[in-house]
Amino acid sequence: MAEIKKQQWTPELAEFHKELGDKNMGPLWASVFSAPEPKPRAVPYLWKGELILEMLEKAKELLKVGVGSIDRRAVYLINPGMKHLEPHGWGGATQTLYAAVQALNPGELAPPHRHMTSAMRFIMKGKGASGVVNGVKYTFEPGDFVITPEWCWHDHVNEGNETVFWMDVLDIPFTSALTSSFLEMYPESRQPVEHPVDFGTKRYAGGMVRPISDRRPSPAPLGRYKYDLTIQAIDGLKELEPDPFDAYIVEYINPSNGKDANGRIGARMQKLPPKFKGKAHRHTHSVVYNVYKGSGYTVMNGVRFDWKAGDIFVLPAWTWHEHVNTSGTEDAVLFSANDLPIMEAFGFEREEAYTENGGHQEIKS
Amino acid sequence: MAEIKKQQWTPELAEFHKELGDKNMGPLWASVFSAPEPKPRAVPYLWKGELILEMLEKAKELLKVGVGSIDRRAVYLINPGMKHLEPHGWGGATQTLYAAVQALNPGELAPPHRHMTSAMRFIMKGKGASGVVNGVKYTFEPGDFVITPEWCWHDHVNEGNETVFWMDVLDIPFTSALTSSFLEMYPESRQPVEHPVDFGTKRYAGGMVRPISDRRPSPAPLGRYKYDLTIQAIDGLKELEPDPFDAYIVEYINPSNGKDANGRIGARMQKLPPKFKGKAHRHTHSVVYNVYKGSGYTVMNGVRFDWKAGDIFVLPAWTWHEHVNTSGTEDAVLFSANDLPIMEAFGFEREEAYTENGGHQEIKS
Amino acid sequence: MAEIKKQQWTPELAEFHKELGDKNMGPLWASVFSAPEPKPRAVPYLWKGELILEMLEKAKELLKVGVGSIDRRAVYLINPGMKHLEPHGWGGATQTLYAAVQALNPGELAPPHRHMTSAMRFIMKGKGASGVVNGVKYTFEPGDFVITPEWCWHDHVNEGNETVFWMDVLDIPFTSALTSSFLEMYPESRQPVEHPVDFGTKRYAGGMVRPISDRRPSPAPLGRYKYDLTIQAIDGLKELEPDPFDAYIVEYINPSNGKDANGRIGARMQKLPPKFKGKAHRHTHSVVYNVYKGSGYTVMNGVRFDWKAGDIFVLPAWTWHEHVNTSGTEDAVLFSANDLPIMEAFGFEREEAYTENGGHQEIKS
Amino acid sequence: MAEIKKQQWTPELAEFHKELGDKNMGPLWASVFSAPEPKPRAVPYLWKGELILEMLEKAKELLKVGVGSIDRRAVYLINPGMKHLEPHGWGGATQTLYAAVQALNPGELAPPHRHMTSAMRFIMKGKGASGVVNGVKYTFEPGDFVITPEWCWHDHVNEGNETVFWMDVLDIPFTSALTSSFLEMYPESRQPVEHPVDFGTKRYAGGMVRPISDRRPSPAPLGRYKYDLTIQAIDGLKELEPDPFDAYIVEYINPSNGKDANGRIGARMQKLPPKFKGKAHRHTHSVVYNVYKGSGYTVMNGVRFDWKAGDIFVLPAWTWHEHVNTSGTEDAVLFSANDLPIMEAFGFEREEAYTENGGHQEIKS
Ligand SMILES: [Fe+2]
Ligand SMILES: [Fe+2]
Ligand SMILES: [Fe+2]
Ligand SMILES: [Fe+2]
Ligand SMILES: [Fe+2]
Ligand SMILES: [Fe+2]
Ligand SMILES: [Fe+2]
Ligand SMILES: [Fe+2]
Repeated sequence: MAEIKKQQWTPELAEFHKELGDKNMGPLWASVFSAPEPKPRAVPYLWKGELILEMLEKAKELLKVGVGSIDRRAVYLINPGMKHLEPHGWGGATQTLYAAVQALNPGELAPPHRHMTSAMRFIMKGKGASGVVNGVKYTFEPGDFVITPEWCWHDHVNEGNETVFWMDVLDIPFTSALTSSFLEMYPESRQPVEHPVDFGTKRYAGGMVRPISDRRPSPAPLGRYKYDLTIQAIDGLKELEPDPFDAYIVEYINPSNGKDANGRIGARMQKLPPKFKGKAHRHTHSVVYNVYKGSGYTVMNGVRFDWKAGDIFVLPAWTWHEHVNTSGTEDAVLFSANDLPIMEAFGFEREEAYTENGGHQEIKS
Repeated sequence: MAEIKKQQWTPELAEFHKELGDKNMGPLWASVFSAPEPKPRAVPYLWKGELILEMLEKAKELLKVGVGSIDRRAVYLINPGMKHLEPHGWGGATQTLYAAVQALNPGELAPPHRHMTSAMRFIMKGKGASGVVNGVKYTFEPGDFVITPEWCWHDHVNEGNETVFWMDVLDIPFTSALTSSFLEMYPESRQPVEHPVDFGTKRYAGGMVRPISDRRPSPAPLGRYKYDLTIQAIDGLKELEPDPFDAYIVEYINPSNGKDANGRIGARMQKLPPKFKGKAHRHTHSVVYNVYKGSGYTVMNGVRFDWKAGDIFVLPAWTWHEHVNTSGTEDAVLFSANDLPIMEAFGFEREEAYTENGGHQEIKS
Repeated sequence: MAEIKKQQWTPELAEFHKELGDKNMGPLWASVFSAPEPKPRAVPYLWKGELILEMLEKAKELLKVGVGSIDRRAVYLINPGMKHLEPHGWGGATQTLYAAVQALNPGELAPPHRHMTSAMRFIMKGKGASGVVNGVKYTFEPGDFVITPEWCWHDHVNEGNETVFWMDVLDIPFTSALTSSFLEMYPESRQPVEHPVDFGTKRYAGGMVRPISDRRPSPAPLGRYKYDLTIQAIDGLKELEPDPFDAYIVEYINPSNGKDANGRIGARMQKLPPKFKGKAHRHTHSVVYNVYKGSGYTVMNGVRFDWKAGDIFVLPAWTWHEHVNTSGTEDAVLFSANDLPIMEAFGFEREEAYTENGGHQEIKS
Repeated sequence: MAEIKKQQWTPELAEFHKELGDKNMGPLWASVFSAPEPKPRAVPYLWKGELILEMLEKAKELLKVGVGSIDRRAVYLINPGMKHLEPHGWGGATQTLYAAVQALNPGELAPPHRHMTSAMRFIMKGKGASGVVNGVKYTFEPGDFVITPEWCWHDHVNEGNETVFWMDVLDIPFTSALTSSFLEMYPESRQPVEHPVDFGTKRYAGGMVRPISDRRPSPAPLGRYKYDLTIQAIDGLKELEPDPFDAYIVEYINPSNGKDANGRIGARMQKLPPKFKGKAHRHTHSVVYNVYKGSGYTVMNGVRFDWKAGDIFVLPAWTWHEHVNTSGTEDAVLFSANDLPIMEAFGFEREEAYTENGGHQEIKS
């Protein structure tokens, strides 16, 4: 972890460094593995919703989902700063998080499988689809948050009349780094449903209470977090002072252990009230934002990214950011997924408020 | 822990045993500390609501609550099997739990203090009272559940027009056994209120989500669990099969850690639908039941205890019990407090279903 | 938990209080459940080793251990302040801890059983005995510490030529308070031995390392802590400054989880160097001390208790205490058992140093 | 996570995939992020000790350690399968672990710094060096294991007469994947020493006991694990049956919490007795082995790697491996570091025994 080098780099040393490389070794004194602060490969970036939908429209024309054709019709987002990572930029929207938008047409079935990567979905548009997670069928409605923790069987079907769109977030880049993933296909085209439809959702219809049979920690006692209940919670917060950075924000929890709903990937929903102008801060955890309602912009490391409903943007590690709702009348609603559970597990999480200039970055572009 | 004694008890031995006693010792071979199964001192018992209210009416006539007079107007329940424990039967409704009904008149103020015993309250009747717990003022409404974990400052006031009644449950007998309690009086007649009224309740208005500032475990991020949200949760369960013992039952949780709302005393709310006839089981944890709505009976170790709204009854450790709603039209609603957190902490918890006679006890009286 | 009563106690009130008692209720305003500080029932006390041995000699004459006669030849210590608790003073040496001295003659077998109470033994004198705990046979040698956590089968045998004496410490008074104990007799006179003799001890022969198969938390991967290794640890400490209260002191740990060796009862060993004069402090946990070597005294709440090897003395909750080694040449070695795991589990533990008079109590008697 | 593709790849689709790439998106249906089993980038590899030492000799001629010259004279090992990762192959000996050999000459001082990457050292050769970790100076002797958890200040000095060599293992590739490292230089050339030399080692001189002041979990109560105590532990195991895969093996633990000595990187020491021929297994955690004594070979995925004292070899994730001691008279002693704490934290760890061919791989080369 050499840092300040006063050493002269002679031709002799250069020769020696080359020799080391040939022998599958490296000179620590001439390498930089740590900087004073994190330097994420990922860059701040935004994908316009129209563009994503346009791509999915093409995919719908060209490809059918189902047994015998493709398994999932999803377009994933590649962070421009990670494109060089093989394969496929590690599917990295941020250092640790994969994000994609998936479209399922009426009548289509995405067959069951399971994997060590962990998944969550945010339902963006359309009704009639559902997913089965470990024997429980969950209906998908816009604004819902649905989890598929690692190694749970899952399939999706659209039994309605319109295409349903959702965002998938997985920890694929993290798993790629560890090279420890497993994947298994289910032997049938669908898994059996062993509980009433929306079992978990019926068991958690309100209040900070749980059925007593969920007293022992388990991975997903509640698989689908309905939009209306989440908004009810956020609207309760609106009677209080907003958070300076995030206004009114909640995180989804697993009722059996009080941890994140999906143990490896955090998820949050927030409302920025009309004209909210957040202050800037940064943290080591990275975030994928999905704009569900409203319009505004986020400044990331001095660059302004304008957004409106349907857009997806990403915040890399340790990047200054502040959120603004530009509407004078409408709330903005942002869903987000983060790698905070990973950061916290090993003491990597840090946070810092931006103190200069009244807490606001200068906008460079 | 000698059990089966084939030893002959000679006069010589009797003499020896007496000598041991004189020297502050005892003969293990002639003592019984363990039985094959728990033998609770506490007995199943029920206090009629009318009787409790009648006593509180007298207390209202005779005593005023406030600085300079008495601190709390509460009548506590003494288990007939524990009366011999000094002092005051250890305030034992069960082996570990104290239960009392408290009445606060309009204009009265129960001044602040704090103690190592842990407390919770279930609001039975009346509006207009409130309590301050560590700087948050919580309004009390019938059916609400309010917590005061150990060493939190708390006071109560009635700013309304009617007497308000609630049940207090504390772990006084447990603390008595450990002889480790501390108590401190607040230097003023009221503590300052540092947050908006019903702060926690506003922060938890719905959904299995939490404000992100409650991500670290803390003792009471939510201090008051409103009745309507709890009932909404139970009504969600009613779309599913009832639990054979407890029908539709939930437990209150601390959103910051997924454990019981009050870390030392569990609390639950349950609905028995019309004509529900539960099966019998037993467990090492003991329970104090408060009948909030409806009427029915509970069979405990073969004895039938009829109950209706306002009654309080107790289930000792390892006692067979089954609940019945006798109404053909109305739900019965039971609030209950238990010592499950204590039992679980040290591996004492066991549960057993009654398998004979179709799962139902023979009623002896 | 009313405390300062300015209320007048009229005859009318006295009459009312009596009525409440008749109805199995009590007036909180006239009861005291909490004091500002803990008031333990248990009192400081010391049993002389000679007296204990004398009693065991008599017991040896009068009683034989084995199937068909008595199960255990143990004389337990009853705290004079707890004698009134039925039955048998709850076997209370302190509020939570039972302590006894057991003698096993050559050829005797104490048959196997198991119980929810948790046990530990400190070997005081004699060689040739051993115990089987969950299929592992552990040899007992003087100074060893042996654990039998809850619900583990255990039996003892003496295959040597001399009587072996040890102290048993169990959490019987704690379990009595909870009334949640279970007990089961083993169907045979001995349990089968499934591992090599001293299996755990061989697996932990030195160093702060563990066999990789003990990576998952389990109740007793190491069942017997040999005296010589413990003393080696303490002698390492002797190169450093002594603790002002306890000189050189270590606690036994479970290598699979870093918690106390026995999850419910803490155990420690300490050396007071020649002329050590400890300072006074108090804490909510209570302690049973067994003097293994040397002589000195302990002042508890102003009373001096002189001790020498073989004596057992008890420290109740929240009692000032300071230890002194009166020898100018010999170390004093004290084994002790405590209820710290119980106190910590629910936030009861507090500690306070004595600050007046240079940290030393005035000796009243 | 599409897997089996029956879809035809038309030119139209190829065109579409290119368009997606241009827009920083990717087609999930044509990407492979998961395989049925892990496919590590890292490959099995061995660096001969002579070669490493030869390189360090050159480094000693060319470079001096100290303030104003280089900070650390260390040659790190680059896994041939990870060379393409920028920068410097992420310093990856395996997917998650960096390994280097460092040489410090008499009189040299490696100045203090701290970083979020976590470090451990295994002392290979030479006496007279020491390290200061958070104010405690630890002497280094051959065979010792020394830890420097994340964000602890650390510096090294050689106050002896000979060059001292040790292996450093850090989690640099893991931290690189998360891009969340921080680094800070100490303002002085040395940090102050606040405790007696070898403080932790003196506090843990034997036995599975700890000083009572280490009862609360902390990162490094014991900083240096002496070789002789570790070997004493392993020799205790030698009285029992060897583990089929690893013979006699222990892992270093943190006495305050029972977890790995360094919370992010596991470390083990093992002895293979003469002629030991281990069976094959594989697991998701990866390992860096340092041969401390003896000679033998390890078969990894069918390739035999011969080793002797001083060699370092690496086992990637999910790679079959079996260890053999070829000597008929001498023990082989292997130190190893692993990423098991990372794998376990998120449920990635799996293990599988090789069942064919009597548990032994066929050697392909
Ligand atoms: Fe999937
Ligand atoms: Fe943020
Ligand atoms: Fe029950
Ligand atoms: Fe109180
Ligand atoms: Fe026993
Ligand atoms: Fe003490
Ligand atoms: Fe370093
Ligand atoms: Fe292995």
